[in-house]
Amino acid sequence: MKANKVVVLGGGVLGSQIAYQSAFSGIDTVIYDINDAAIDAAQQKLDQFPDQYAHDLGATAEQLAETKARLSLTLDLESAITGADVIVEAVSERISIKESLYKSLKPYIGEETLLLTNTSTLLPSQLIGFAPNPNRFLAMHFANQIWVHNVAEIMWAPATPQTTIDDATDFAKQIKMLPILIQKETSGYVMNSIFLPMINAALFLWADDVADPQSIDKNWMVSMGVDRGPFGFLDIMGLNTAINIEKGFLANTNDERYQRIIDKLQILVDANQLGVATGQGFYHYPEPEYQAAAFTQV
Amino acid sequence: MKANKVVVLGGGVLGSQIAYQSAFSGIDTVIYDINDAAIDAAQQKLDQFPDQYAHDLGATAEQLAETKARLSLTLDLESAITGADVIVEAVSERISIKESLYKSLKPYIGEETLLLTNTSTLLPSQLIGFAPNPNRFLAMHFANQIWVHNVAEIMWAPATPQTTIDDATDFAKQIKMLPILIQKETSGYVMNSIFLPMINAALFLWADDVADPQSIDKNWMVSMGVDRGPFGFLDIMGLNTAINIEKGFLANTNDERYQRIIDKLQILVDANQLGVATGQGFYHYPEPEYQAAAFTQV
Repeated sequence: MKANKVVVLGGGVLGSQIAYQSAFSGIDTVIYDINDAAIDAAQQKLDQFPDQYAHDLGATAEQLAETKARLSLTLDLESAITGADVIVEAVSERISIKESLYKSLKPYIGEETLLLTNTSTLLPSQLIGFAPNPNRFLAMHFANQIWVHNVAEIMWAPATPQTTIDDATDFAKQIKMLPILIQKETSGYVMNSIFLPMINAALFLWADDVADPQSIDKNWMVSMGVDRGPFGFLDIMGLNTAINIEKGFLANTNDERYQRIIDKLQILVDANQLGVATGQGFYHYPEPEYQAAAFTQV
Repeated sequence: MKANKVVVLGGGVLGSQIAYQSAFSGIDTVIYDINDAAIDAAQQKLDQFPDQYAHDLGATAEQLAETKARLSLTLDLESAITGADVIVEAVSERISIKESLYKSLKPYIGEETLLLTNTSTLLPSQLIGFAPNPNRFLAMHFANQIWVHNVAEIMWAPATPQTTIDDATDFAKQIKMLPILIQKETSGYVMNSIFLPMINAALFLWADDVADPQSIDKNWMVSMGVDRGPFGFLDIMGLNTAINIEKGFLANTNDERYQRIIDKLQILVDANQLGVATGQGFYHYPEPEYQAAAFTQV
């Protein structure tokens, strides 16, 4: 399958990245959002990508101009959806919101149009019942900064036809994503199924006063030969987001160690130390201590 | 504290690395081992380090010659121990073996000599009772390839004096290790407390048929921006070692998912696919697939 028109529903952090990457890959792309404020916010995000693509990928001025010309934003669902080969849904993680949005697509969506959800926390089986064409629906999950961390985790419901999986795989490649096939529905896909236990293990050590965040990151960075430790990742994720994730683990396990993590994170969040977003988390930004050579020098 | 003579008890994988690094750092260093076969095996390991230090650290021929001159191997415990400032114990992880070795040091060891155990799985409290001078005993844990991954995790028993912790920290720095202070006795120190949950999470995905090892590693490598995934690390660790670790988790948790991991690993081990050590594990060696650019290309 080759997509000629892509629609992204919701121009938030990931939605705007997916749309820009699609347009950058040569596809006419439309962002649909629900009101002027959302469109303005999406446009502000889009305006930052040309510099990043030039810096990170060496994109030329011509490529960036073409990308801009292929990309539009609209409040009109009918014109957005009509003729779309692929629709990527990147709205809030509430089932009720996704349900009403999927139902509103019904009058305009083509029979063969792929509907992909970028959900991080829900399973395809929880949403497929609302899809206009259930056989053309699955989950495609993107990592933040998709132009650098270009993976697309592809997860489907038990009854999804192989042709739909194949078409989604083709689309991932068309927008230069490395497709990762998840053979069985799994909360967290592959990436978060590994990343969150790693992050939790580091948070437990901190909450239990075994070692401070800087020592833990130094240890990880030197032992693994990588340039960022768990607390550096937490600053990128945002400590407010981390609290929400830990609350989920607390609710699911009733393990009181998660409460200790939440309490310690809350102190930082209350002091507006959310991480990269506020310029201060476990490290200072834009030049966090861990990026200096001295951080891991003896 | 500044060490002028270091003894390493046991010239195995880590013991030989610690001794070579100590000698490379300008300290007269002796490896003690229990029989000629062990001494020969240690010598064979030592013989490989000059090339690696030259390649990885740019060590000069003069430095390597001086290192060799500072390093000796012996079967004579008395001459090894006499006058040593630091003793690093790197023998098998059996309490009974460590107990009898520690007791045999008593007649020769100086009152101020530091005795450091490189144990990976035991806590200082479990061994301190056997130490000739309990106040001068703690755990210093090294990562494999210590000349590159130069961390020393330092863990002590509740009653250990601060001066001993300070002296151990000085010694770590003297042999160019980044000291990581573990403030509370913790099985697995910092590193394995984070690394093993990450590895287990990846193994669960494999054992549950959620994704294949190559897909999991690709996903991790691109998403995290690192050059090796969990299964690449497992090949380095050795799949036989991994089975032993997973058996420990199975015994401690009674979680039958560990049995599925063990069963799948056992198939590879039975086929002599132990990882880097046998040239075949999840990948082929010496040039594993994941090191080729094509591995993560779209």
